[in-house]
Amino acid sequence: MDTFEPLRASHDDGVTGTIPAKEGRGVFLRRGQVLMVINTHGSQVVDTWAFNSTDLREFMSMEHSRASMLKITPGVGDALVTNRRRPILRVVADTSLGVHDTLIAACDRYRYQELGAAPDHANCSDNLTSVLHELGCERFDAPCPLNLFMNVKSDGGRVEFLPPVSKPGQSISLRAEMDQVVVMSACPQDITLVNARRPSDVHFRVSSPG
Amino acid sequence: MDTFEPLRASHDDGVTGTIPAKEGRGVFLRRGQVLMVINTHGSQVVDTWAFNSTDLREFMSMEHSRASMLKITPGVGDALVTNRRRPILRVVADTSLGVHDTLIAACDRYRYQELGAAPDHANCSDNLTSVLHELGCERFDAPCPLNLFMNVKSDGGRVEFLPPVSKPGQSISLRAEMDQVVVMSACPQDITLVNARRPSDVHFRVSSPG
Repeated sequence: MDTFEPLRASHDDGVTGTIPAKEGRGVFLRRGQVLMVINTHGSQVVDTWAFNSTDLREFMSMEHSRASMLKITPGVGDALVTNRRRPILRVVADTSLGVHDTLIAACDRYRYQELGAAPDHANCSDNLTSVLHELGCERFDAPCPLNLFMNVKSDGGRVEFLPPVSKPGQSISLRAEMDQVVVMSACPQDITLVNARRPSDVHFRVSSPG
Repeated sequence: MDTFEPLRASHDDGVTGTIPAKEGRGVFLRRGQVLMVINTHGSQVVDTWAFNSTDLREFMSMEHSRASMLKITPGVGDALVTNRRRPILRVVADTSLGVHDTLIAACDRYRYQELGAAPDHANCSDNLTSVLHELGCERFDAPCPLNLFMNVKSDGGRVEFLPPVSKPGQSISLRAEMDQVVVMSACPQDITLVNARRPSDVHFRVSSPG
């Protein structure tokens, strides 16, 4: 049974944090705050979700965002929108090549089963579930994430997973368009090439306007 | 609060049915049965969802299907998969040009608000919710649908909504890879060009092997 009680936010201005390799972390953002996600060591994909912290039934939706942006991948100035078609995160800066993905599901236990990994292999979907659970919300499935720094090509309708092109220290900055909780997972994929087979820590910084 | 009790199926072999313009209908399929969706008058988009009828937490997922098919759009022989990465529907025939969409959210009350429509404008998301509710399942949001006969171009990362190319009588046939309930909505969009501005009835037929 899913539950969607409003979350108890604990805002701190100027928050910085680490997302250890293969793990997930949540951060609360107030409207106007900017979240910078830093690909500290390069090559690391960060699966990212955002939920309206006063009503978790509203969340960032890739299928609504593509319809709103008229693009597969957001660039500087573009807003990701929720399943209620309201802007939730806007890209305000991007020092990477702008290679991010909106097409592909988060990795999950079923994916690692297919790949023959150990049954307890870490995965982004369970990282999301765990972070939400710690925050007091039960949600059984993962919406399609914004896969920061993930290199997926889809020209001519063919979908291709490619090695990462992100370099150490590159970052993307997302401005909160509503109060929200963002959950990020440093993707544990170490079997395919998506993280160049070496999942690593990433970092984030939250700054406030003015 | 979402609920996911197993559904009480009422299977009938050789079922045929109408999905009236702007409405939604559900149909139970046993593994092996084939659902033919017929674009009776042409130009009509059919938003389509599929749920494992013994556990509605498992459902057809476009973001998992793209990763599995390595394509944006399924063609004959391709299987759509669930959020547990299991095949649920396989395209076994397609007499249309094969133009279908997996990128775009179902229309919803928020979309029609943006378009300035009346507050009670029919929409595919609420059609899904209503059908599931009649079947005894409460679900607050719509997974990304398989948009049969919807013409969305995404070359070069640019997403473009185009007028339909489907002709009267064209059909797609989907084989059930597990017991399931399929929900179809004859998209009520009459403001943009997606249904050539004239939503119309579509029909379906369920056949059993052998």
